[in-house]
Amino acid sequence: MELKKFRKREGLFVAEGPKVVGDLIAAGYVVHQLFATPEWRGPREQCQDVTADELQRLSFLQHPQQVLALFQLPAATVCGQHSSGLAIAIDGVQDPGNLGTIIRIADWFDIPTIYCSEDTVDAYSPKVVQATMGSIARVNIVYTNLADVVNRAIVPVYATLLDGNNIYHEQLPSDAIIVMGNEGNGISPAIRQLITHKLLIPPFHQGPDSLNVAVATAIVCSEFRRKGQK
Amino acid sequence: MELKKFRKREGLFVAEGPKVVGDLIAAGYVVHQLFATPEWRGPREQCQDVTADELQRLSFLQHPQQVLALFQLPAATVCGQHSSGLAIAIDGVQDPGNLGTIIRIADWFDIPTIYCSEDTVDAYSPKVVQATMGSIARVNIVYTNLADVVNRAIVPVYATLLDGNNIYHEQLPSDAIIVMGNEGNGISPAIRQLITHKLLIPPFHQGPDSLNVAVATAIVCSEFRRKGQK
Repeated sequence: MELKKFRKREGLFVAEGPKVVGDLIAAGYVVHQLFATPEWRGPREQCQDVTADELQRLSFLQHPQQVLALFQLPAATVCGQHSSGLAIAIDGVQDPGNLGTIIRIADWFDIPTIYCSEDTVDAYSPKVVQATMGSIARVNIVYTNLADVVNRAIVPVYATLLDGNNIYHEQLPSDAIIVMGNEGNGISPAIRQLITHKLLIPPFHQGPDSLNVAVATAIVCSEFRRKGQK
Repeated sequence: MELKKFRKREGLFVAEGPKVVGDLIAAGYVVHQLFATPEWRGPREQCQDVTADELQRLSFLQHPQQVLALFQLPAATVCGQHSSGLAIAIDGVQDPGNLGTIIRIADWFDIPTIYCSEDTVDAYSPKVVQATMGSIARVNIVYTNLADVVNRAIVPVYATLLDGNNIYHEQLPSDAIIVMGNEGNGISPAIRQLITHKLLIPPFHQGPDSLNVAVATAIVCSEFRRKGQK
C-alpha cells in the first residue's frame, strides 16, 4: 500500500530484467532512471552502472537480472464509450500473478485495452509488471468505475457464469467486452446485472468446480479470436 | 529440498483448507493426521483440535483455513505403455503455481494422468497442492523417465512448437500425449525428437513471444476437448 501511494505520488513504476525493460523502452515508455550491471546490452544514456550486489539490494526479485528501471506511469487514459474491438474488464482480481498473466494473454490475442475496477490489484506493482513478461508495454490498462464503463458500452458484454451457454457452441463477435471476476467471489452484483451474454466453459466430468481466473480468460479469449479468424 | 526428502522418507504430504482437504478425503486418500479448529465441518475422528494460533504455527499459508492434514502419498503408479485417452506430459516445469494450475486444468478437462519428468517441481509440495484447489485428489501424477514413456506410447505425441501447425485448423484425436515444457527453455532435446505432431497457438499480432505454460496448456486442452465433443 505504501508503494502504491509512492507510485501515484511520484508517477513512477519499477520494471526489471532485459526482456521487460527492453519491451517498455521499445514501446516508448519514458525512462526516469536506469540501474544496470555492465553486461546489460541496452541504451546506456541515463544509466547508472551498478554491481550485481548493488542491484540485488535494489531489486524486488530473488534473482535480479542485469537491469532495474524506473519508468513514468502512462497518463491515465480518458475512458470514453467502448464502441468497437475486444476489451477485457477485470472486476476485482486480487492476485498479482493472475493479473500479470491476464495482461500477457490480452497481448497475445491482440486485445488492446483492459478496464480494471478500482479494487483490482495495482497493475504497476512490481509483481504484476514482472508477471506480464513485457506485455504491459503493449496493453492499455485503465482503472475506472467499471460499472460505468460496462453500462455505457455499445457492444455486447460477455462473462462466464454457471447458467451460461456452452462457449464452444456460441457465435462470438469481434466487438465485445469480456468481464472476468474476483478469484473467490466472481463478478460483483453491480456488474453482473449488466452482462448481456452469459457463457459457460463446460466441465468435462464431475469434481472440479472452477478454473483459475487467468486460465478461464485464456480459454475465452482463444474462443473469441478463433471464431474471428478468416 | 529437505521437505521433499522428508516427504519421500515418511511418505506423507500436507494439504490445507476445507476445500482441498475435503476433496482428498472424498477421493479416498488416507489421512495420517488432521489438525483442525472447532469450526471445521469435516470428520473429527483422527482429528486433533487446535486453536487458530496453533494452526497458524503449523501452516504453510499466510491465512490458514480451519484445517491442516497429513495424507499418505499415493503409491507410485507403475508406468505402462500409454495406449488410450489423453494424458499430459510435463517436461521440467519449475514453478509450483504453474504445475498446480496445470493439474487443475487436467481435472477440468477430464485428463486423468499427468506424467512428470524427474526434474519437474514436486507435485506434493505444499504450494503445488494448494494451487490445485483440490484437483490433485482427482488426477494421477506419475514421476518417471519421461523420454521412456513418450517413446513407448502408442498414441500420437503433440506439443506446441514454433514450427507447428495452427492448432485451430488441426483435427485433434481423443487419444494422445500432450507435452508441455519448462518455463524458460521449453521442451528438452531428448523429448523434442519424440514429438510426432507439432502445433502452434498463433500469435495475433507482433510483440509477445510466448504464453505462460499453464495458459498454453489450457488453450491446447480446450482445443482437444472441444473437437472431441459430440
